[in-house]
Amino acid sequence: MAGNSFGTLFRLTTFGESHGSAIGGILEGCTAGLELDLDFIRTEMLRRKPGQSEITTQRKEDDEVEFLSGVFEGKTIGTPIGFIIRNKDQQSADYDHLKKVYRPGHADEVWMKKFGVRDYRGGGRSSARETAARVVGGSIAKLLLAKENIEVNAFVSSVKDIVLDKEYHELNLKDAEQNIVRCPDESTAKKMISCIEAAKTNGDSVGGVITCIISGVPAGLGEPVFDKLHAVLGHAMLSINAVKGFEIGNGFQSTKLYGSENNKIESGVAGGISTGEDIVLKVAFKPVSTIAKAQQTKDIHGNEVTLEAKGRHDPCVLPRAVVIVEAMAALVIEDFMQLQSANRR
Amino acid sequence: MAGNSFGTLFRLTTFGESHGSAIGGILEGCTAGLELDLDFIRTEMLRRKPGQSEITTQRKEDDEVEFLSGVFEGKTIGTPIGFIIRNKDQQSADYDHLKKVYRPGHADEVWMKKFGVRDYRGGGRSSARETAARVVGGSIAKLLLAKENIEVNAFVSSVKDIVLDKEYHELNLKDAEQNIVRCPDESTAKKMISCIEAAKTNGDSVGGVITCIISGVPAGLGEPVFDKLHAVLGHAMLSINAVKGFEIGNGFQSTKLYGSENNKIESGVAGGISTGEDIVLKVAFKPVSTIAKAQQTKDIHGNEVTLEAKGRHDPCVLPRAVVIVEAMAALVIEDFMQLQSANRR
Amino acid sequence: MAGNSFGTLFRLTTFGESHGSAIGGILEGCTAGLELDLDFIRTEMLRRKPGQSEITTQRKEDDEVEFLSGVFEGKTIGTPIGFIIRNKDQQSADYDHLKKVYRPGHADEVWMKKFGVRDYRGGGRSSARETAARVVGGSIAKLLLAKENIEVNAFVSSVKDIVLDKEYHELNLKDAEQNIVRCPDESTAKKMISCIEAAKTNGDSVGGVITCIISGVPAGLGEPVFDKLHAVLGHAMLSINAVKGFEIGNGFQSTKLYGSENNKIESGVAGGISTGEDIVLKVAFKPVSTIAKAQQTKDIHGNEVTLEAKGRHDPCVLPRAVVIVEAMAALVIEDFMQLQSANRR
Amino acid sequence: MAGNSFGTLFRLTTFGESHGSAIGGILEGCTAGLELDLDFIRTEMLRRKPGQSEITTQRKEDDEVEFLSGVFEGKTIGTPIGFIIRNKDQQSADYDHLKKVYRPGHADEVWMKKFGVRDYRGGGRSSARETAARVVGGSIAKLLLAKENIEVNAFVSSVKDIVLDKEYHELNLKDAEQNIVRCPDESTAKKMISCIEAAKTNGDSVGGVITCIISGVPAGLGEPVFDKLHAVLGHAMLSINAVKGFEIGNGFQSTKLYGSENNKIESGVAGGISTGEDIVLKVAFKPVSTIAKAQQTKDIHGNEVTLEAKGRHDPCVLPRAVVIVEAMAALVIEDFMQLQSANRR
Repeated sequence: MAGNSFGTLFRLTTFGESHGSAIGGILEGCTAGLELDLDFIRTEMLRRKPGQSEITTQRKEDDEVEFLSGVFEGKTIGTPIGFIIRNKDQQSADYDHLKKVYRPGHADEVWMKKFGVRDYRGGGRSSARETAARVVGGSIAKLLLAKENIEVNAFVSSVKDIVLDKEYHELNLKDAEQNIVRCPDESTAKKMISCIEAAKTNGDSVGGVITCIISGVPAGLGEPVFDKLHAVLGHAMLSINAVKGFEIGNGFQSTKLYGSENNKIESGVAGGISTGEDIVLKVAFKPVSTIAKAQQTKDIHGNEVTLEAKGRHDPCVLPRAVVIVEAMAALVIEDFMQLQSANRR
Repeated sequence: MAGNSFGTLFRLTTFGESHGSAIGGILEGCTAGLELDLDFIRTEMLRRKPGQSEITTQRKEDDEVEFLSGVFEGKTIGTPIGFIIRNKDQQSADYDHLKKVYRPGHADEVWMKKFGVRDYRGGGRSSARETAARVVGGSIAKLLLAKENIEVNAFVSSVKDIVLDKEYHELNLKDAEQNIVRCPDESTAKKMISCIEAAKTNGDSVGGVITCIISGVPAGLGEPVFDKLHAVLGHAMLSINAVKGFEIGNGFQSTKLYGSENNKIESGVAGGISTGEDIVLKVAFKPVSTIAKAQQTKDIHGNEVTLEAKGRHDPCVLPRAVVIVEAMAALVIEDFMQLQSANRR
Repeated sequence: MAGNSFGTLFRLTTFGESHGSAIGGILEGCTAGLELDLDFIRTEMLRRKPGQSEITTQRKEDDEVEFLSGVFEGKTIGTPIGFIIRNKDQQSADYDHLKKVYRPGHADEVWMKKFGVRDYRGGGRSSARETAARVVGGSIAKLLLAKENIEVNAFVSSVKDIVLDKEYHELNLKDAEQNIVRCPDESTAKKMISCIEAAKTNGDSVGGVITCIISGVPAGLGEPVFDKLHAVLGHAMLSINAVKGFEIGNGFQSTKLYGSENNKIESGVAGGISTGEDIVLKVAFKPVSTIAKAQQTKDIHGNEVTLEAKGRHDPCVLPRAVVIVEAMAALVIEDFMQLQSANRR
Repeated sequence: MAGNSFGTLFRLTTFGESHGSAIGGILEGCTAGLELDLDFIRTEMLRRKPGQSEITTQRKEDDEVEFLSGVFEGKTIGTPIGFIIRNKDQQSADYDHLKKVYRPGHADEVWMKKFGVRDYRGGGRSSARETAARVVGGSIAKLLLAKENIEVNAFVSSVKDIVLDKEYHELNLKDAEQNIVRCPDESTAKKMISCIEAAKTNGDSVGGVITCIISGVPAGLGEPVFDKLHAVLGHAMLSINAVKGFEIGNGFQSTKLYGSENNKIESGVAGGISTGEDIVLKVAFKPVSTIAKAQQTKDIHGNEVTLEAKGRHDPCVLPRAVVIVEAMAALVIEDFMQLQSANRR
């Protein structure tokens, strides 16, 4: 376990630093004979792409995926799918001022303590640039799941204190793609956008919550005891940059109810196994650490210094993170589908 | 991944149903030469034991651990530690009424859908009886960690709407053992106990939150990307029965802050790697599903039936779950300590 | 990887030292609904049991298996099968003379170097006593495979320079059980037995080769590249005590042929994937290291000493190893059957 | 386990078909701070490269490795090392005649049975082209091992019936690089070369044995029971294309000796754990299946057809396989070094 792989049978292994020459990955366990819908994959990549709207970072990344193996005449052939995404708009100069400074809220300092060296250019391996590889894997997982009518839909359900106060089944989840913040309720979306714009103007950042609905999952997925379905979903979500919390079903809210009340509420998982109902989960994203405002931090010698961020950063990462949450959910479900096939052979 | 193992190098694999002849496990990766402090292990088991107070189940379980291997002349020898705990007070008769009924909120029905058969006697493998094996593994992990001054202390920080409103460093965490609900603040503890007693009287159950503080962890633990320290901690906690949510640091609360505010808050983990500061995490336990009150549910033929629970059950599982949370945290930290040794060789 | 588990989905994890209180294991991934044929398992255990004939060790071991979980009303329920075998005839006194001496050809000295401590009583974890747990797992694998007409038959094909010179399809493999050396050709068997008896009289030991035929395996098992079917079979066989060599098909003999000749020979595996034909493999067992003859060796201080073995040992381990080879083969095949189900979902 | 990864902590995952756009891999667990000696890696790649002499295939492959991550300012940084090797001289036309024919001795037919589709251009994923990625990983492992004076040296010890009849310590192993067949004994090398040239002239192929000596390994490597050092080495070697047999120490020869004789022979491994002495292993390579001679085979409809190979092929793969054997050995040893660091923390 060097921490670069996710999944048992359907497994994504990734590599790459934000400012190296490329990032990429290897996806194992993709069933042979799947038509690899490149348009769909491209669309998914665009949902994550920086610079897609005025409330995301204006940094430009080239997110073009090159598939190197595992596909022949447009279809998967059962072998590992290798892919790379070149890093083009690197602008390393933006990061020179970080050579001797640890950014607050980032992994810079602990990375140095862990490895004894670090690539100071923009986070290196700890940069969210890495999540592009997850979207590639996740989009292929979605193609496999779609053949069995399993769907994964996430959306932004809160930004700072703007909270979407409708139940998910009162909404058309596809409407989330109708606005730049990806909240399926238009009036709430507008308030969220204003909130993000205000933070941006102020040189600050805001966080929020993404809700994810997985529908069409057959009953019986999940492995008892340590690999309960929601435990692995939690692992998946908590591995996304900036995530600080995870809930299955009504999560922390359930602690406020009596058992007699709570027993009536469905979360899509019982005892760690899918029930066949919609699976509902929530993921908390902290406000991103890199802000334009001057901040106090430490340099590599331990001295207090003031840092003013120079690069171009997201005031709110949630709109772009929706597709990453979906990708991780899809990777988990496809893996458990395969595990269940083996159980039931 | 059949779901019965946790950990990579320091790994616990468990087996056993609540009403089979025994449960047990195999703990691999325990360094040779550790004095196996049986008194400590016994004390830990007592913290989990049913029947320890009037606010836990009155069911009696025999929790005596028999070590079968891996220990010679009182010390570990580097080989796997096999252990069993016999199931004695089984009273299967208590469960005969469940042969044809699925309990609400339990895994009974999905288990049937997953495997096609089930052991209907009290949850079988999905019973929390299984967590006894985790406490054995966790207590050995604690012995290893104690040699390097790493400590794991959990406590009950809320029960239903009774919330402990002090910061953990204002408290003496060891005081949690001074009362039956395991909250280190005496006056809050009293309110929690009353709340649980009221639920019990009412034939109902309540949930709450356990907070866990891991101190003394060196900077650098955690593997980048998919096996971030808090992602694996989240996986560990979410695998415990009745857990519905997990937070690292200020978790969902962080979504309400600006980046400039949140950057000042320490959670013990940055970018998935330990910082050397105390690690703070929170775990949400739903109210347990089995209640004395009559409930509507389904039988195995899909008919609506009324179920009145007969066995002896916990009105609130949190006091007994404190040691389970600690056990899982200790298993995770010891595993990452070993992984880091390998990284740094 | 602490080395105590074998398999990915169908996985056996074992524990236990030869002179601890018990050995045992956990078998994960056994499909629910299998009738657990205890008579068959007992018969398999008897094939491995010491003391079964005059050419095996006269040591008595109690090989009674106690199943602790995973079975309900005679059938497997999909949960891990925990089992133990008590160590009864320990006679630790026999090993007191080994407290300060490293036996030649054994793991005593390296074990000390690896772990810094050791259980000197008869090999501890490195003892072949551990293989009893493999036979339990292997016999359950055979029960699963039998439902699909997959059969595993091994036999002794050479003892020292006595070589069975018939092809396997000229023989009735079941005849191997008709004599104490487990060679399916009566006249060769007799020579082998004489050879072993001569070694025994002389206080010495002899080795040989076990051939294993796996029939009924569907085409398509094995994972390309690193987990070729014969690579995992090789791993499995080389993990058995005293094994020094492994061949698939005509193995080393193939190096003597031209490609045009060799291409006509079937080994049951092509490019690491099963072809649907019989899989043929050979396993080389060295003569066991413990012999009655006095030998020069080292004590724990590095001094040369003369060692005369006292315990009761096998002059030739092959007759008892036949069932162990079969067990490992069955574990491998069942695991690959499950992996292939997942591939093909 | 999708079969594309090897190792636990130091782990190589590979992808790529012979006639896709690139092959490559991800190497995890490489300690930070290693100077990545690109000249050394290039030299190792040249030892494997086709077309290096008149006794290897005249096919040209571009083996230039592009490193994409894990390296910064010339040194490793602890993150996964991603790399690709473009496929340039593909000449797919050479393979069109194979679209409807299964080559004898190859994986073509079983691959079809396994996946239901196949890339018919030259073996696809089952091609030995994939071993180039192993050499990249192996050469980095060697760099890490060299820092602790661990060395891996392999050489050709037999070709068909030409057998090198000297013990390895009578030879200077580095002399293997002095001739094109890579046998460290000049006169034997000449005979081997003649043997290969004769086979080539005849449109046929020959196999042989590679011996590998690993020196400087500290005592204590290897994990008891299932992951004995030689079991994992065997797995590694048997995963190389065309390998049919594996021996540790005197292997099958040990079966011809008495225990009293064999106990005196050192193989570098006892009970699955390294002893600190040189580790000696042998690997049997069958004659490669692709030959120029016309052969009888089957087409995809099951009809008997005559196949005349067209591509350019190796009459004997052993000279180029020496570095692959070394690479796999180095991967195994570095992984066990890391595991032992964790054991001993």
